[in-house]
Amino acid sequence: MHQRLAPPQKGADMTDAIRAAELLKEHRKSIDRLDAILVYSLGERFKHTQAVGKLKAKHDLPPSDPAREAAQIARLEDLAKQADLDTAFAKKFLNFIIAEVIQHHQQHQSQP
Amino acid sequence: MHQRLAPPQKGADMTDAIRAAELLKEHRKSIDRLDAILVYSLGERFKHTQAVGKLKAKHDLPPSDPAREAAQIARLEDLAKQADLDTAFAKKFLNFIIAEVIQHHQQHQSQP
Repeated sequence: MHQRLAPPQKGADMTDAIRAAELLKEHRKSIDRLDAILVYSLGERFKHTQAVGKLKAKHDLPPSDPAREAAQIARLEDLAKQADLDTAFAKKFLNFIIAEVIQHHQQHQSQP
Repeated sequence: MHQRLAPPQKGADMTDAIRAAELLKEHRKSIDRLDAILVYSLGERFKHTQAVGKLKAKHDLPPSDPAREAAQIARLEDLAKQADLDTAFAKKFLNFIIAEVIQHHQQHQSQP
């Protein structure tokens, strides 16, 4: 008990801090790589939603499609559970993207 | 000129609508696959930011790191240009995720 309560040596503290800094750096590198995946995937996703927007505008379909969006949200919830991602966040994320997509579609409809 | 202004035949219209519906379906399948990539990548990203949060809490580092965030935003802008993604949207997206991460970190700091 005495040993556990004793303050750690200065050397041990330094080693600990260096190790923490190294771990932080590695995590940040992974985050940067994942951000590249996210940006490229979003870029690809918007190419498809732009094509969908053009098709909808050409065939006079409404920009928003509640049935499709409900199915997407249900699917995302399932995926989020599998990926151990907070489902509330996943839904917020999809709504964030869908809002952007609908805005793009409305721009297409108003500029035929 | 007369030919271009003449209304299209009903059969041609139908074929066009069927082709549009098929294209729409294919785009939606791609979007669904990209959403799976996005959800799993986000899940992985949050695992790393959770680890960063724990490290920061353990070593009494502030939850937010403005220098790191500025570097991330600059990098994201570059990536967005390469991926032909709207840079304003990419920034909005990163801020959306960072806000969520900071919220998680603050929860860690207040629950040591």
